[in-house]
Amino acid sequence: MQKYIEMTEKALHAYMKFEDKPQKKIYEAMEYSLFARGKRLRPVIMLMTAKMCGADPAIALPFACAIEMIHTYSLIHDDLPAMDNDDLRRGKPTNHKVFGEGIAILAGDALLNKAFEIVSEYDVPGVCKKTVLRAISALAQSSGTEGMIGGQVVDIESRNEDMELLKYLYSLKTGAIIRSAGVIGAILAEAEEDQTAAVDSFCLNLGIAFQIQDDILDVTGSEADLGKPIGSDAANHKSTYITLCGLEKSRDMVNKYTQKAIDSLAVFENRGELINLAETLISRKA
Amino acid sequence: MQKYIEMTEKALHAYMKFEDKPQKKIYEAMEYSLFARGKRLRPVIMLMTAKMCGADPAIALPFACAIEMIHTYSLIHDDLPAMDNDDLRRGKPTNHKVFGEGIAILAGDALLNKAFEIVSEYDVPGVCKKTVLRAISALAQSSGTEGMIGGQVVDIESRNEDMELLKYLYSLKTGAIIRSAGVIGAILAEAEEDQTAAVDSFCLNLGIAFQIQDDILDVTGSEADLGKPIGSDAANHKSTYITLCGLEKSRDMVNKYTQKAIDSLAVFENRGELINLAETLISRKA
Repeated sequence: MQKYIEMTEKALHAYMKFEDKPQKKIYEAMEYSLFARGKRLRPVIMLMTAKMCGADPAIALPFACAIEMIHTYSLIHDDLPAMDNDDLRRGKPTNHKVFGEGIAILAGDALLNKAFEIVSEYDVPGVCKKTVLRAISALAQSSGTEGMIGGQVVDIESRNEDMELLKYLYSLKTGAIIRSAGVIGAILAEAEEDQTAAVDSFCLNLGIAFQIQDDILDVTGSEADLGKPIGSDAANHKSTYITLCGLEKSRDMVNKYTQKAIDSLAVFENRGELINLAETLISRKA
Repeated sequence: MQKYIEMTEKALHAYMKFEDKPQKKIYEAMEYSLFARGKRLRPVIMLMTAKMCGADPAIALPFACAIEMIHTYSLIHDDLPAMDNDDLRRGKPTNHKVFGEGIAILAGDALLNKAFEIVSEYDVPGVCKKTVLRAISALAQSSGTEGMIGGQVVDIESRNEDMELLKYLYSLKTGAIIRSAGVIGAILAEAEEDQTAAVDSFCLNLGIAFQIQDDILDVTGSEADLGKPIGSDAANHKSTYITLCGLEKSRDMVNKYTQKAIDSLAVFENRGELINLAETLISRKA
């Protein structure tokens, strides 16, 4: 896992080199959140998937960086006073607390935009342009109104009282980007259709397990590990898997969805890294 | 001009058809600003350019819609309380006044994202995928930190006291997208390099003339025509071409830059529509 994180960090830094210009504040704001102890889960899933499908994981690096930028932009905008109004993220003041709301909004916009700048310039020998466009389309759909943004809208528009709506919300808000991380890795590796479907199923189930685990950590985690106050879901009067099914059943569900994710990978011989990743996530503390 | 506006309106409506889903509020918010009496200047420039370069303008329609969505998202975010804090836009309450700040931020995000969804799915027979990627790259660069967003950052970070900085700001904030409107039209039409350069020069000069005209209208225009209060630049203590060089000289500059724009088109036989557009913009009231 560590080597994929290092590949991602190095590539992200290379994309974030800028000259001293009148708009340099925006680069500082983008970097502040992009290099703030992120787990790099989505890039790692994408790179591991490309490898599992038989490709050099490096061919997925531009998309891995793009998806991390999209994830980061969503956190900056989520934290804004008009949304979740959070002061802390990963143990640091949130972007708008440091740079002000105007720059924080623009830094989010800029990271989303930069993601598409990077992938539109994708130029790796052996990967055809049609495949690149397919991958860009998968990325754009997963971050849009039928994906991540759609989930965020449901989150601020409802209190998620029923299980069906909560599942729908999670499948969009966190699930869509995690799914596309794997699917894009498979697309770029030119995987067979059944392989891509298996990856999709893996990520879908892993995403649900991940999100339920987040709910659990918001109740049982420590502020030092999480880098933000616990109990924020309760404070925001939001339903979660915990309030709807209780802690014990939620833990069972994390295990169940993780197992389902792992089972999806049966078609791959070379699945060790992703199985290991899935098992590690069950016991994560942040 | 009217026929290009109609083509754009029709295509925009086709892209904005959505099912009744829990996140439907976001579609309402996107539509509210997207169909709010916009001039469709950027799409018109793109479609006219594609035509002038010998292509069927319809091949540029997906990009024309995408650029209008990006323009619209920038207006929604610019109007937010954390930015210009405007209550009116084109005679209607601004997006956040109607939908609240959270949804307005997400509606902006969603329009930017949707622009890239549309262009990544571009599939017009005869236009090769490499050309599509070049056009997406031009679009993404013009709306990013070295383009529109960069200009917005300079705008909120400075009072634009000197002419050099003001020119830089204008070249990014309005100029970059107007330039890419023309350039993308030329790219999709597979224009020769000297033709693309001529289009770029036309749009660059037209963009400056357009922006200075905006400054003039903020002083001399009527609120009824503009659909928003006049004098907002002065109220925000922002330097403009008027405060830096006076009204008369600003008018001269609009004429000068418009003429320079028109002269750039000399290489094209079929340049009547764009010349006409440039001349119309000098006498615009809104």
